[in-house]
Amino acid sequence: MKYIVIFLFASIVSSAQITKEQLNIMPWPQNITLTEGSFLLTKNFKVNITGAPNERIFIGATNFLRRLDGRTGQFFQQGFVMGLNEVPDAQLQINCVRAAKIDLYEDESYLLEVTTNKITINATTDVGALHALETLLQLLQNNSNSFYFPTSKISDFPRFTWRGLMIDGARHFMPIDVIKRNLDGMAAVKMNVFHWHLVDDQGWRIEMKKHPKLIQMASDGNYYTQEEIKDVVRYASDRGILVVPELDVPGHASAILTAYPEIGSKVVKLNVNNGEKGQQFTQVQSYSVERNAGVFAPTLDPSNPKTYQLLGEFFDEICPLFPGKYFHIGGDENEGKDWDSNPKIQEFKKKNKLATNHELQTYFTMQLIPMLKKHNKVLMGWEEIMTKNMSKDAIIHSWKGSNEGMPAGKSLVDAAKGGYKTVLSNGYYIDLMLGVAEHYLVDPMPKNNTLTDEEKARILGGEATMWSELVSPATIDSRIWPRTAAIAERLWSNENVTDINNMRKRLDVISFRLEELGLTHLKSKEGLLRNISNNQKSEALLDLSNVCEPLKLYSRNKGGTEYQMYSPLTLFADACTPDASDAIGFDSAITNYLANKTDENQAAVANYLNKWVTIHKDLTALSNNAPLVQPLLPLSKSLSAIAEQLLLKISNKQGLDDSALYGLLEKCDSKEYADVELAVYNSLKKLVQAKI
Amino acid sequence: MKYIVIFLFASIVSSAQITKEQLNIMPWPQNITLTEGSFLLTKNFKVNITGAPNERIFIGATNFLRRLDGRTGQFFQQGFVMGLNEVPDAQLQINCVRAAKIDLYEDESYLLEVTTNKITINATTDVGALHALETLLQLLQNNSNSFYFPTSKISDFPRFTWRGLMIDGARHFMPIDVIKRNLDGMAAVKMNVFHWHLVDDQGWRIEMKKHPKLIQMASDGNYYTQEEIKDVVRYASDRGILVVPELDVPGHASAILTAYPEIGSKVVKLNVNNGEKGQQFTQVQSYSVERNAGVFAPTLDPSNPKTYQLLGEFFDEICPLFPGKYFHIGGDENEGKDWDSNPKIQEFKKKNKLATNHELQTYFTMQLIPMLKKHNKVLMGWEEIMTKNMSKDAIIHSWKGSNEGMPAGKSLVDAAKGGYKTVLSNGYYIDLMLGVAEHYLVDPMPKNNTLTDEEKARILGGEATMWSELVSPATIDSRIWPRTAAIAERLWSNENVTDINNMRKRLDVISFRLEELGLTHLKSKEGLLRNISNNQKSEALLDLSNVCEPLKLYSRNKGGTEYQMYSPLTLFADACTPDASDAIGFDSAITNYLANKTDENQAAVANYLNKWVTIHKDLTALSNNAPLVQPLLPLSKSLSAIAEQLLLKISNKQGLDDSALYGLLEKCDSKEYADVELAVYNSLKKLVQAKI
Repeated sequence: MKYIVIFLFASIVSSAQITKEQLNIMPWPQNITLTEGSFLLTKNFKVNITGAPNERIFIGATNFLRRLDGRTGQFFQQGFVMGLNEVPDAQLQINCVRAAKIDLYEDESYLLEVTTNKITINATTDVGALHALETLLQLLQNNSNSFYFPTSKISDFPRFTWRGLMIDGARHFMPIDVIKRNLDGMAAVKMNVFHWHLVDDQGWRIEMKKHPKLIQMASDGNYYTQEEIKDVVRYASDRGILVVPELDVPGHASAILTAYPEIGSKVVKLNVNNGEKGQQFTQVQSYSVERNAGVFAPTLDPSNPKTYQLLGEFFDEICPLFPGKYFHIGGDENEGKDWDSNPKIQEFKKKNKLATNHELQTYFTMQLIPMLKKHNKVLMGWEEIMTKNMSKDAIIHSWKGSNEGMPAGKSLVDAAKGGYKTVLSNGYYIDLMLGVAEHYLVDPMPKNNTLTDEEKARILGGEATMWSELVSPATIDSRIWPRTAAIAERLWSNENVTDINNMRKRLDVISFRLEELGLTHLKSKEGLLRNISNNQKSEALLDLSNVCEPLKLYSRNKGGTEYQMYSPLTLFADACTPDASDAIGFDSAITNYLANKTDENQAAVANYLNKWVTIHKDLTALSNNAPLVQPLLPLSKSLSAIAEQLLLKISNKQGLDDSALYGLLEKCDSKEYADVELAVYNSLKKLVQAKI
Repeated sequence: MKYIVIFLFASIVSSAQITKEQLNIMPWPQNITLTEGSFLLTKNFKVNITGAPNERIFIGATNFLRRLDGRTGQFFQQGFVMGLNEVPDAQLQINCVRAAKIDLYEDESYLLEVTTNKITINATTDVGALHALETLLQLLQNNSNSFYFPTSKISDFPRFTWRGLMIDGARHFMPIDVIKRNLDGMAAVKMNVFHWHLVDDQGWRIEMKKHPKLIQMASDGNYYTQEEIKDVVRYASDRGILVVPELDVPGHASAILTAYPEIGSKVVKLNVNNGEKGQQFTQVQSYSVERNAGVFAPTLDPSNPKTYQLLGEFFDEICPLFPGKYFHIGGDENEGKDWDSNPKIQEFKKKNKLATNHELQTYFTMQLIPMLKKHNKVLMGWEEIMTKNMSKDAIIHSWKGSNEGMPAGKSLVDAAKGGYKTVLSNGYYIDLMLGVAEHYLVDPMPKNNTLTDEEKARILGGEATMWSELVSPATIDSRIWPRTAAIAERLWSNENVTDINNMRKRLDVISFRLEELGLTHLKSKEGLLRNISNNQKSEALLDLSNVCEPLKLYSRNKGGTEYQMYSPLTLFADACTPDASDAIGFDSAITNYLANKTDENQAAVANYLNKWVTIHKDLTALSNNAPLVQPLLPLSKSLSAIAEQLLLKISNKQGLDDSALYGLLEKCDSKEYADVELAVYNSLKKLVQAKI
């Protein structure tokens, strides 16, 4: 009987022999070889660790067991991995030569070998081994009855050393659990730098024991305690992730100046009271926490010694919370308006022979370098800090591009040529709500560049930036994931890994697997739609959300004032995401159909159109008891109208004339309703224009 | 034009005049009067606060604004409520006479009046006002275009002063965000006691600065820091909730004894080594953190002075974290096995004239009273602590019932008669996976009791208990909610509010509204089913989950050893919940149909049956690429088979004979598959038995 069982398993498993193209690994490894065969997962599966790793490998291996068991329901006998060489005969053997340092340039490589009865991971460091465990989880396959790993050899290492994600905890506060689940997501796709934007016009988020005014006056009660920050840093370190804090100065300073108006640049006016007594008053300039989005005037006074005294004290309190080597001081978007109108500052510029506000800002930034050096920290700043006298020790964070009227990534090349280390974020602004393909094809290493090897080496990598003007803790995951996984691949994998369709196929699987980490990017939609529909079940509302995308490029928040930081983010646009799923599906159905008008391909197109023909009627019915559905009706009306005509067209039935048809099409190009756009417009246009 | 707009609004609103029966308030208020008219919500809606409240009202009012705006998308102009009388002409006026104390017997009453242009809340304390804000949120109505409050007068106060929820953070650790969102849920249904079970055989969860061994050796790294505990206490206090910590002694002590084996009761054995040298060794008894569920032997030694010394030190460190007056010391399920076999303890009993282990436990418990009194704390314990010499100051927590071979709630009456204050949990064990109706009808005040008024007054209220043997952070919400809202109603509302159908109708709405607090009870299912289905979309799987319920009364975890504390809780049983939605819907369809065999009623029944006829075919197809679906196939097979026959039966078509039909029916009564039961069995039986 035993033999029969073994034979059955063997035959089942071997029948599922798979190819590289079927694997859903992301980032794609540098080298992978599949052989014929498989390692069958059973409840006896155990992990053993040898070598001289940091303790983080035990946490990582235990989490690995829980995740694998959660996916497969094997009821593993091993509960925890607590120490070295606990189970010498375990099926999974992990060896790490030494403990990793959480820093750039660390060895993150690994070798993973799966044979039919054993899996081995060899890595120089525990961080490399953690990456291998993520790859192994992604390698998991199943047939109808079993879970298994295909026998294989993978050797892997990152292309860039800086693979970052920035989260803005200032504009909308993101509680610790949001940060932690996103750190888990980062680790799952082998990212290694968490850039934590902690201070901006809209709030100061770091508990300050020596300067409590900052949180008392400028946080609305929403801040990270020092204990919480240390906990996040530890949690990140356990996942091989370096934390880089950002305190944005000298601009974006409304929050700081709310607590310390005396270091602001705005000129102090004298008001004459023309009332009965004709007295003069000195008006003290006051600031307040900003509630809108945008670029604002409040700026630190670079001519005031107290500015530097306070900043030094801030750094003295903040730096010890972050053991990593890098500190981001922002430095962006300082327009210098308040400097221009302040005579004292103008005098200071003259006295110090600073010709422009840029030079004045450089003067300011240079004062911060020793304050940070005192704590063994290297200064990093947005590209605006790169002016002619800036220290070459500073790291330049390149962010401007066509939106800002600049050639994309120009500052990156300038920095590398100018002797600066540099990180690219232009092209990785995930808050712009662009499709994943737009980010995926952006490479930190410019194509056809003329950089020397030394200059190339200064390009550290890239970083996805999640600015939080329009996200809440309930929606931020769906703005970060899954697109950031594709950026992670760009930063880790070979530069030739650029097939978009293959990436999309893998991303679908990676995305659903990320859910096991507590990320809410997929399920947040359900709750939002429930609110919008007033708890009425509606396929139509879900269908509409699957063809709509939030307005892109900051056009959702016109002038930065439509949404205040306390405005509702529970609306239809919040339920929608970039890369609307049915829009992508419809576009490939259209492409197939236009290439080859088989019945099957026509049916695939008709399937979408039929769904949309009734969407307006259904949503109108829904709206009778759901005011939040009302703003969507113009969208559903346009979609139903064109769908009806296109169904006639593909069946060669008589519909409207071309001019009327184009009229209907153009109504689908609107950005006027519910802060979304119909993401099927371009695909519809292809069909309208096509000769059938 | 202005007039027309006003007229339109007025007509829209008045057309939606509603009745009390349409309201979805829970707990139902003591007194409510509706008048004809409504208060229309607009973006100008603002809140003003007067009187002398605690600061928590500002947090509560700000959260109220965010939640109301999130539901209605009005884009309120008011962002925050920060101080007294900020907006004297605001539409919502809240007056509180004084600050509440977070304690039992506090005045929690409120008066809420809605007129067409003004809403007023008057309350003695800010906690009463917070309750009023929750009622107001539940009062929200809408028509197709607007949101409004019906004009009304509500005066309200709680029936019982103890309206508790216990969460077990020991067996499965529940991170702070889980605790906080459940505190929000409690506040939404006016519960006021959070009982935090922090120590059990499976772990010690409190950071101990003076006794770090407890977390180093007995927490698996999962514990609440003292900062986090203080933060939770503050968060609870901001919501009017008292936190009662529990340290379970002298039984349930595996975790404590893992760190301090020297205070354990297990007898120390002398082993004779019969080897070459014939030496004798003293074997030190060691303990380890328990991984199974159940009742275990490890028990503190009540005869050892060090036990009391250590407990005193523990209390000295823990008590200051909890400003409330009550401290729960557990005291349950000590079987005394290790006491019986320990000669030293037997001698101690004799010396102190303690006839039984119960008396010995009372001796033990009595030693704790002064330790707690030192910190102004009253001792509370599970009913086992109530023995003849127990201090009358102790509060008795009644939990045993028919499962434990006791008349339900007997100890509650005994306690009240015996002079003890007491709280009921028997009947509120939400971890048993029973339907909401079973809990809803349990009243802390026994029907037809013969208690004097003084004795009745000792019955403080009740508490839902969420033991965590079989829940993870991802599933616990769906075990607590929405059922706990119905228990909250039992503890707040008039005893005559007992209509189950009306409760269910309201509970559906309350449940979906609880989502806005971040509770995951509804959306957790989606993610779990995605894992089970291996990311394949499947209506059939969802449909099956809507007629299945997790096995009840601890039968899921046979002997407490099937699931270890690290076993997967990502399975089908975890996706299912008590009160399976389609089971309830089907039962009422059956009831209607059997009462009145109209075409419409028949169609309603057929609608369910048609869904189930194909469920087995669909799930079989799904299982080809989803091993976790395999265990469900016997269930879907049984359901499809009977559905097919019953469809024939209700259409008066020839099907199987009765005996074969009963055979199919009984297959639906299985508890053998996937740790669930088909919750439609009883309804199916009604139809099988019926004459059509």
